[in-house]
Parts: sequence; C-alpha cells; structure tokens
Amino acid sequence: MDLPRIAQETCNNLVHYLTYQACREIAAQLQETNPAEYIWLQQFTAQHSLQRSDEYLAMLYRQRPDLALRIMTVRTHLVEDFSDALPEMSRTSIHQANLKLRREMLEHLTQTSDASLEAGGGS
Amino acid sequence: MDLPRIAQETCNNLVHYLTYQACREIAAQLQETNPAEYIWLQQFTAQHSLQRSDEYLAMLYRQRPDLALRIMTVRTHLVEDFSDALPEMSRTSIHQANLKLRREMLEHLTQTSDASLEAGGGS
Repeated sequence: MDLPRIAQETCNNLVHYLTYQACREIAAQLQETNPAEYIWLQQFTAQHSLQRSDEYLAMLYRQRPDLALRIMTVRTHLVEDFSDALPEMSRTSIHQANLKLRREMLEHLTQTSDASLEAGGGS
Repeated sequence: MDLPRIAQETCNNLVHYLTYQACREIAAQLQETNPAEYIWLQQFTAQHSLQRSDEYLAMLYRQRPDLALRIMTVRTHLVEDFSDALPEMSRTSIHQANLKLRREMLEHLTQTSDASLEAGGGS
C-alpha cells in the first residue's frame, strides 16, 4: 500500500473541500449583502470546477481578486480552526460506523438464521 | 460562520474519501489475485455511490461481507496511519497555495503595469 501517495491525495482532497466550504461561506455572505455579486459568483462557480481548487482560485483571482482573497482568507481560517480536531473526529467516526455496520450485519444474520430455523421446524 | 457544522461535514467528507481509497486498494489487490472478483467489485462500485460510504458498505456487507470487512479494515488502517499528519500537511498546503496565488497575481499585475507603461510611452 503506497501510504505517502494516499496521504498526499487525501490532503489534496481536504484542501479542495475546505476551499469549497470557504466558497459556500462567501456565497452565503454575498446572498445577504449583495445579490448581484452572489449571482455572478454562482455563475463563475458553475463554469469553473471547485474540484481543482487552485485553478479555480487562479481564474477567480484574475477576474475578481477581492473575492479570491476572501475565499483564501476563509479557507485559511477553517484549516487553522478545526484541522487539529479532524484526526480524532475521523477516527471516532470510522470506528463507530464500522461497529454499526457489524451490528447490523449480526442482526441480519440472526434474523436470517431464525427464519431458517422456523422454516426448518415447519417442514 | 457555523464552524461545528463545517467541521462535521469536513469529517464526513474525509471518511468518504478514506473509504474510496480503501476500496481502490482492495480493487488493486483483487486485480492481481482474482480478476473475476475485481470485475464484480468494479461493477458493484459503478452501481452504488462511494459518495455515501456507509450505505455503500451496508449494501456490500449484505452481498459480500468478506469484501466489506476488508475495506473497513483498510480504512481503519488509513485513518490510524496518517490522519495525525493531515492537519499540518493541509495547513502547509493551503499556506503554500495561497502564497503561490498571490505571487502569480503580483507578477500578472507587474506585467500588466509594464505593458501599460510601454503603451503609454509609445503614444
């Protein structure tokens, strides 16, 4: 398993996702304060994929450096504010999800087994 | 800014992404050891979205508990192995990307300004 590659790709995914959240935050602010700018940003975002967040920001920077800077500032705040909590949150989340799946499977197996026993008893 | 909500959504995104990476890893192993199972898993993954990783695993668990358990085991390894490194990696990544964008914008502005000066000088 190529762990360094997977770690780097996971980091890239996290950066794209935080940029998406930052963009959503700025869009929500504009929707309240400046509907025309909100529509402009929505149209820009429909045309340029946030899946490649740095290309998105580079294009936005050329057309509206003020908006690009606001998004860059917000994503910096987000990564500073809660990235330290993410390892523990994601570990707990995966642990609980795995437990829940195993419990559901056990219940499913028990029901299937009960049904087989009943079917066997009735024959 | 609703930080707890954004933190939770970012955690969910991270869990989905690690499940996707775990699924990719198991698919790569099957491709080498058991091509028929590899094709089966690829077809299953085409029909069930990994964007909702727990629904995906619950469905897989009912049809192939062995494969679901392998993916759950790998995603647990991934989150244990490198999630502690992610905060620093993502902070550095965002910091460097922001610097690069600002430098590119400065170079762009300088070129535009030089071009204007030259155009002005030639008139």
